[in-house]
Amino acid sequence: MIFRQLFDHESSTYTYLLAERSGGEALLIDPVHERVDQYLKLIEEMDLKLVLAVDTHIHADHVTGLGRLRSASRCATAMGEQSEADCVSLRLKEGDTLNADGLKLQALYTPGHTDDSYSFRMDDRVFTGDTLLIRGTGRTDFQNGDPGDQYDSLFGKLLTLPDDTLVYPAHDYDGRTSSSIGEERRHNPRLQVASRQAYIDQMNALELDPPKKMDLAVPANRRCGLEQAA
Amino acid sequence: MIFRQLFDHESSTYTYLLAERSGGEALLIDPVHERVDQYLKLIEEMDLKLVLAVDTHIHADHVTGLGRLRSASRCATAMGEQSEADCVSLRLKEGDTLNADGLKLQALYTPGHTDDSYSFRMDDRVFTGDTLLIRGTGRTDFQNGDPGDQYDSLFGKLLTLPDDTLVYPAHDYDGRTSSSIGEERRHNPRLQVASRQAYIDQMNALELDPPKKMDLAVPANRRCGLEQAA
Repeated sequence: MIFRQLFDHESSTYTYLLAERSGGEALLIDPVHERVDQYLKLIEEMDLKLVLAVDTHIHADHVTGLGRLRSASRCATAMGEQSEADCVSLRLKEGDTLNADGLKLQALYTPGHTDDSYSFRMDDRVFTGDTLLIRGTGRTDFQNGDPGDQYDSLFGKLLTLPDDTLVYPAHDYDGRTSSSIGEERRHNPRLQVASRQAYIDQMNALELDPPKKMDLAVPANRRCGLEQAA
Repeated sequence: MIFRQLFDHESSTYTYLLAERSGGEALLIDPVHERVDQYLKLIEEMDLKLVLAVDTHIHADHVTGLGRLRSASRCATAMGEQSEADCVSLRLKEGDTLNADGLKLQALYTPGHTDDSYSFRMDDRVFTGDTLLIRGTGRTDFQNGDPGDQYDSLFGKLLTLPDDTLVYPAHDYDGRTSSSIGEERRHNPRLQVASRQAYIDQMNALELDPPKKMDLAVPANRRCGLEQAA
């Protein structure tokens, strides 16, 4: 398998390039608008054909690369069926499978950070978007976020995966590139709660500033990052 | 196998944590002085015992964490036998093997960036220090660097590894976390040279500013990062 993790320093976003084999089909998870040229160059150098670009949810902290990638490569684009983006070619729901050659990713509906948040599971790893971060979880105070839903997504889905499942989130702000489900269950401070209500109370007590790019990014991302004002 | 790649934003350094199994022995490659607490916390959370910290060479762009790690965990510390650091407990030479439980790393002497530069090979991957970077190579204009030696290290050693060997460098400045030997042979612009002399000429034509921390880091690193002036 080919796997490349790419980091956008501006928004601290991880983008993932996946393919079964050199010369074959590839997919990208959570591409960043300003980095599309880097992705396309890498895909060309690795002799891959981009067939799908997918966002785990409508991001508020960066503009998505979905639109630019579709224009440049004619790849399919995907987001959850709950998403307000009407520009994608595939609308995902729980249990759907994303395919690129022999590579298969299972879509898990994991709302809470937003109501259109999905995670993607593959063999030994899971791409958790902003639902489960390394030693953190995504905020739940905007874009139809809901801490109770997030508790259910975390404790009812992600944390039921095997302990050694690798965790690849959409962001990290402290130089960490991966974790595991077991590590997060035991050491993620947000997950050390006695009840669903305790999790809800914890999340509601956070007083966070809005993401810097939110006013730009959310409307732009409903159009897959195209025709952005800036 | 347990593998964690950690990034220091200040110096764009990658540090690698490796262990065969949870509960077992671990080693760190290229730890950064200011991040030692993060490493120790992670090692404790993962129920690992740090037995060895190794630097690929005397770094000029950050202060090493070797000394602090040795003080905190009593781990062994290692660098190449050519290194001017007299504080390490193991002095490596070509062909030596680093062990942590069942995990084995083979030392490859790969001078050029400095005269004490080593790479470490393990199964499907190689840790290349500043000898081979992603789409680049380490500068050769100080610390007994030598572009001819670097050419020999690259073309005579690292590029003879199988194409699908993963490349994990000591730094990246553009969000890339790994590459492969085949990718670098084909697409690394520094490696597209017709001869050893062409590589030497190319490196000698670079006009680079000294690393910001060089005057602090090199003397400090000769003491394993302890008793630094700052």
